[in-house]
Amino acid sequence: MNKMNEKKLDISTLQPPLRLLFGPGPTQVHPRVYEVMRKPVVGHLDPFFFKVTEEIHQMLKVVFGTENQFTFVISGTGSGGMETAISNFVEPKSKVAVLANGFFCDRMSEMAKRQGAEVVRLEKPWGEVCSDAEATEFIRRERPQVVMYVQAETSTGAFQEGKAICSAAHEAGALVITDVVTSLGAMPVKIDETGIDVAYSCSQKGLSCPPGLAPITISPRAWERLQARTTTNHSWYFDLKLLGDYYYGPHRYHHTAGASMFYALHEALLLIMEEGAQNRWERHRRCHLQFVKGLEAMGVKMHVQEKHRIVNLNTPRVPEGVDDAKVRSTLFKEHGIEIMGGFGPLAGKVFRIGVMGPLATEEHVASFLQHFGKALEAGGYKRSAAAGAGR
Amino acid sequence: MNKMNEKKLDISTLQPPLRLLFGPGPTQVHPRVYEVMRKPVVGHLDPFFFKVTEEIHQMLKVVFGTENQFTFVISGTGSGGMETAISNFVEPKSKVAVLANGFFCDRMSEMAKRQGAEVVRLEKPWGEVCSDAEATEFIRRERPQVVMYVQAETSTGAFQEGKAICSAAHEAGALVITDVVTSLGAMPVKIDETGIDVAYSCSQKGLSCPPGLAPITISPRAWERLQARTTTNHSWYFDLKLLGDYYYGPHRYHHTAGASMFYALHEALLLIMEEGAQNRWERHRRCHLQFVKGLEAMGVKMHVQEKHRIVNLNTPRVPEGVDDAKVRSTLFKEHGIEIMGGFGPLAGKVFRIGVMGPLATEEHVASFLQHFGKALEAGGYKRSAAAGAGR
Repeated sequence: MNKMNEKKLDISTLQPPLRLLFGPGPTQVHPRVYEVMRKPVVGHLDPFFFKVTEEIHQMLKVVFGTENQFTFVISGTGSGGMETAISNFVEPKSKVAVLANGFFCDRMSEMAKRQGAEVVRLEKPWGEVCSDAEATEFIRRERPQVVMYVQAETSTGAFQEGKAICSAAHEAGALVITDVVTSLGAMPVKIDETGIDVAYSCSQKGLSCPPGLAPITISPRAWERLQARTTTNHSWYFDLKLLGDYYYGPHRYHHTAGASMFYALHEALLLIMEEGAQNRWERHRRCHLQFVKGLEAMGVKMHVQEKHRIVNLNTPRVPEGVDDAKVRSTLFKEHGIEIMGGFGPLAGKVFRIGVMGPLATEEHVASFLQHFGKALEAGGYKRSAAAGAGR
Repeated sequence: MNKMNEKKLDISTLQPPLRLLFGPGPTQVHPRVYEVMRKPVVGHLDPFFFKVTEEIHQMLKVVFGTENQFTFVISGTGSGGMETAISNFVEPKSKVAVLANGFFCDRMSEMAKRQGAEVVRLEKPWGEVCSDAEATEFIRRERPQVVMYVQAETSTGAFQEGKAICSAAHEAGALVITDVVTSLGAMPVKIDETGIDVAYSCSQKGLSCPPGLAPITISPRAWERLQARTTTNHSWYFDLKLLGDYYYGPHRYHHTAGASMFYALHEALLLIMEEGAQNRWERHRRCHLQFVKGLEAMGVKMHVQEKHRIVNLNTPRVPEGVDDAKVRSTLFKEHGIEIMGGFGPLAGKVFRIGVMGPLATEEHVASFLQHFGKALEAGGYKRSAAAGAGR
């Protein structure tokens, strides 16, 4: 039977198309990152492998802006990082306060419920953030064990500051879990300065590595809380106590971490170190300003208020009368450019356009804006009229 | 601060050493697999990506020996596959029967307990398997909702047949979850013929791809049971209902599956299709026989009875008086050859030596045996005396 099956298959070596990844992630990958992925695999207990992870930890501390000893990598995607943070720090029957202003806040809430927690939410419209006063009042009133928020909401384009949240949470004795999936590597996420206890990210956005790994960082306070936890994590795979013993100290076997992806993350981080993290953040900010200026010149408006924007993930509003699916398919079919639409309450209302990593250059932004302008027209946009109205 | 940190770092592009991976996995990777990993990443919702996954599904069906529609890939390592199987099919307060004869059976038991199940075990010494009669009697007596066993126990080298287990389980109305982490790609695992409901594996052993992905297959009966489940999986990341909607039908966004590793798995499977699965299994069997013959000629004995051996993972006993750590370090330091020792009840008692993928050739086996013989001597082995005694 197998022989027959094999003969029927018409499959050959992949020839992936070259896309220009201007979506919210994955982003374009530097050739040096691809190059290192083809280096020979070593075992997951090889001393060389732990040299690689140790160097990754050091570089991650720089981009996270933290001195946390426990700053390492989960063998899963960004959502695996989210599940790691939540399954370890949200206990059954505990109370979790979520500052809810987008899709990934909803995902955090859902995961916390699956751990058996009571979830209370401070709701904000998608694209807005909560003020210091609102967050403080909410946390003081609810007195939760854990507070969760998304720093850079990929579904809306909004950046949530966290200092007041962390202060109020710590005052109430709560830990703070923060999603920095979209910001890490492209913006300063300032873990220690903000007071964040647990933060997770992904490899394929600001770090510009292929998807598959989830960096995570855990404050000493949170690590201590973890050691004192008396209930068992439902997840064995994401159990940080076991993972701590694998990446540190005894290097006790847990799972078979995959060398190739770790090589890739190592090189992606090294590229950031060579450029300088500050320089990289500044480059992304510059490209963001260029991008927004170009959009506004077309009469297109940004969904998020200027002071709350994520710099590497933009959410321009779909102009009235424009078929947003047509715009996206025009870019994709004619230029291999991937951007994404909005979803949930923002479905059909915004585009989600990433400008990060190797594509965050003046030339790439200028070229994108040109193609985007034409695609908008193909989608029914009357440029001159709207431009006049928009200014 | 970051700038200072960066300056202090002394990190450069990795130059991984070339190991000969004769351990239980990861195994050597074919150059074509490395080559395809550096092809450009596409998005996780790109039509091209779903062409890749669809072809992977087709090829996985051949190596699994199944017609199961739901045969796909989890974004995690083999242990992530295990957690997927168990978190979806083991419900709180259910009864799970484990045929326990090694380390990975213990891991399955631990994961089932973390789901809140009652775990009952039929214990066998490490290296043995349970007979049809024992399994049948155990399952009839316990009447569990789920039966679990490991087909190829990486910790012991024993291969457990499953037909009688599956018959008894189905008679009792139970589902069967089988670990085929080590066997898939190197031996026929025969999912449908055996009657297995849920099986998971990894990418880095018999499939000879880098680690990071976990193939899984689910019978129609199990998929139906999943749809009828009324409790919610504690895990969102491994929730098969959500994963089903991502990989099939609506392609609804779940997590950001990483293109590079999927390209690698696609190429690794394609290499198997080109060789022919039957031919590949036969090649592994031939090399196993050559390997065992060579060991026996040295007077070294196999831990597992001949008829119960895994062909691609051998567990020769450490000869009396031999320092097994010295043998392993000699191979590693002098030749870059990785093999593993035993652990748990088999610590210091067996070596664990994989012969699979690109290393399963007559030349590689002959060369390995030569080095291994010398390393044994370095570890204190008196070849001639023991050889005489051993035959």
